Amino acid sequence: MDYDLIVIGSGPGGYVAASRAGMLGKHVLLVEKDELGGVCANRGCIPAKSLLHGAKVYHAAKEGAHLGVHGDVSYDFGEALAWKDDAVTTLRNSIAFLEKQSHVDVVKGNALCVDAHHVTIGETSYETEHLLIATGSSPAVPPIPGAKDNPHVVTSDGIFSLASLPSSVAIVGGGVIGIEFASYFSLLGIKVDVIEMLPEILPMMDGELAKLMRRAMASVSFHTGAKVERIEGGKVVFVDTKGVEQSVDAELVLIATGRRPNLDGMDNLHLEATRKGIVVDEHMETSVSGVYAIGDVNGISLLAHSAEKMAHIATDALYGTGKERFDTSLIPWAVYGEPEAAGCGLTEAQATEKGFEVASAVSFLRSNGRFLAEEGKRAPGMAKVVADKKSGKILGVHLLGPASSEMIWGVARPLTVKELADTVFPHPSFSEALHDCAEKLMV
Amino acid sequence: MDYDLIVIGSGPGGYVAASRAGMLGKHVLLVEKDELGGVCANRGCIPAKSLLHGAKVYHAAKEGAHLGVHGDVSYDFGEALAWKDDAVTTLRNSIAFLEKQSHVDVVKGNALCVDAHHVTIGETSYETEHLLIATGSSPAVPPIPGAKDNPHVVTSDGIFSLASLPSSVAIVGGGVIGIEFASYFSLLGIKVDVIEMLPEILPMMDGELAKLMRRAMASVSFHTGAKVERIEGGKVVFVDTKGVEQSVDAELVLIATGRRPNLDGMDNLHLEATRKGIVVDEHMETSVSGVYAIGDVNGISLLAHSAEKMAHIATDALYGTGKERFDTSLIPWAVYGEPEAAGCGLTEAQATEKGFEVASAVSFLRSNGRFLAEEGKRAPGMAKVVADKKSGKILGVHLLGPASSEMIWGVARPLTVKELADTVFPHPSFSEALHDCAEKLMV
Repeated sequence: MDYDLIVIGSGPGGYVAASRAGMLGKHVLLVEKDELGGVCANRGCIPAKSLLHGAKVYHAAKEGAHLGVHGDVSYDFGEALAWKDDAVTTLRNSIAFLEKQSHVDVVKGNALCVDAHHVTIGETSYETEHLLIATGSSPAVPPIPGAKDNPHVVTSDGIFSLASLPSSVAIVGGGVIGIEFASYFSLLGIKVDVIEMLPEILPMMDGELAKLMRRAMASVSFHTGAKVERIEGGKVVFVDTKGVEQSVDAELVLIATGRRPNLDGMDNLHLEATRKGIVVDEHMETSVSGVYAIGDVNGISLLAHSAEKMAHIATDALYGTGKERFDTSLIPWAVYGEPEAAGCGLTEAQATEKGFEVASAVSFLRSNGRFLAEEGKRAPGMAKVVADKKSGKILGVHLLGPASSEMIWGVARPLTVKELADTVFPHPSFSEALHDCAEKLMV
Repeated sequence: MDYDLIVIGSGPGGYVAASRAGMLGKHVLLVEKDELGGVCANRGCIPAKSLLHGAKVYHAAKEGAHLGVHGDVSYDFGEALAWKDDAVTTLRNSIAFLEKQSHVDVVKGNALCVDAHHVTIGETSYETEHLLIATGSSPAVPPIPGAKDNPHVVTSDGIFSLASLPSSVAIVGGGVIGIEFASYFSLLGIKVDVIEMLPEILPMMDGELAKLMRRAMASVSFHTGAKVERIEGGKVVFVDTKGVEQSVDAELVLIATGRRPNLDGMDNLHLEATRKGIVVDEHMETSVSGVYAIGDVNGISLLAHSAEKMAHIATDALYGTGKERFDTSLIPWAVYGEPEAAGCGLTEAQATEKGFEVASAVSFLRSNGRFLAEEGKRAPGMAKVVADKKSGKILGVHLLGPASSEMIWGVARPLTVKELADTVFPHPSFSEALHDCAEKLMV
């Protein structure tokens, strides 16, 4: 046997699983067809946050007159990309270093799974006891006429290699990727249209906050309930909620409508799969014994930190207690635009639909001391806590405002309204809005 | 009986206690000698955060070239003060509104306590069943020759009414107030010297992080272990660690060496008190039955959110279950400079001194994805978790880096290393550094 474990794909699922197994003394091979780090490090989370940060600094300075900050500020896209590239390279190198430290062999190439115990990469075949698939997902381009082979159209894969900033952008899809890029371009003063098929953007976010998010992104034109019919050059033609055909013109069209699992090279395994991805059990084991699938490719939760948690679960199933489980209700999410948003658990509508007797409370950030001091009384911001009236358990938390992504982790655990109300929050902090909600629910 | 409860002082302790009692249907009088909101709203937390935010925006724009942000940026102190004033006024108004909603009578004036049941304000006497003292604290000016009646010298009370920015500042005291103002002025390019008597700044912060904080504030000159001998105009003369007399010259000298409890008007109560403040029991009741003291004036914890928690405890003792307690180990603190810092619980040194078998782990933020993307690989940042090896309980958490003040709340509850390690943190987020520490402690 060449290896105890072959991991295919080095994103946040694969590289963590490989390194954990390696640390446990297992002989591990990590296969990557492209660059270490997967979409997250190379064409996703990290580059997006790098660019967004610069755009936020630019916009804050440009709009800082009320704070006493003045100046002619400009933005250089090329420099921003260079800074982004530096962060990405550093991250890749640190992943390479981690695998080396963990005694993991890393090989570049396309993995072809011969069977559950044999993988071919180029000319070389490897035998393995266990196989872990962490091949991720790719942008799915829907069958919209004009969406393919159109020089105006990009997906999130292509957007980081633009030669220059466009003068206007039409974004098809109001999910996390669509909203983050809408935020990025609009912060830079670029005209942005977002076209979303559903009645509201950000489906995982409570409707009250999603609505406020749209209002907060005042310079973006949102077209919800809009079905895209075709794309002609930079013109996106859609049918609005009243059935009327409309269109927006843009230099760049970003398609951000969803992602599909990467299943290349796995045909011989005959894994059970749905349209969403490879079917796995609670240990992340597929329909084929000894073959595991984690991260985007199993379609359970398309988030980098979900992939990492699944890496823990799979390695725990293989070499540990087998007790770790994936609990979707305790997986936080964040949208790193301006304003930031984050959440964990159910929306109020979802909780009601599930049959809970729901108690919910909101806190507007304009009544929050730090928010008043920094953002002012007219800025949008809000927290919402959704709870089960009977048990007092918190079912969902939704945040819109500064640092949302950094305070959400505290509710990514089972928590009651009373525990939240009893917690002392630092004053002044945006996080006090959570406490405010809990206090309202205690009355 | 005129009132069920008279509350003296309308800071975060007093106004919360008054409103809670009022909401419970009690007849409450809130006495304030100055402006509603106390030091926190008027000359402390809120104004400091308002000014710091503007200075951070200014500095980020000025130093944003690596992110692609360029421009000649200027800072207008007058506009910054006006924005600050607006936030403070809004906050005062919202406190007034809250008390009105809670049916609390508010009266302006100096309260003279005649006995435990009688308070005189000006010409009027009021009878009350219970008395709650929330008079706060004031800056203590140590007996340094030249510290008083010196036009160059201010305390935190005076610093918000400066007519213009000084060209240089000497700050006596490296606690929270000293460090926040050092950060504010240095972000604006003003020369700053900090003179601290102790061997390290920020005594509540783990030494490793305090040292890094000094390094991070590279443009500030720190003089630790320095005993100030005298102040001559703007010259601060001190003896350094080697016993050598040294001095720094500045246009403005800020004395931020500590605070003393406000005990005016309470002599007739003959309350037991120490130099730190009024002695209280676990219900916040003083040595005189029926008289309670919360917030800075009892000296237990000089933080706005501590005062608020004590307001809950006192009103719970008076009108509720009497079960609420104050647990210093679960009170977070934050320093809102650049970089931000926050913590909760013990430092490693304190934990060792208390006899714990300590396990600790640090995580440098340069290995954190969001930090790399936004701050870069050369920026300082760090998280540290101090735990009890036997029980696995977390004893202290210390953070230095962006949004520290917003992520600390999650550890302001009893928590084990395993619970922290099992929590899924959003990726990428600075908060993942906490998870990183927990993982290191699990090995």
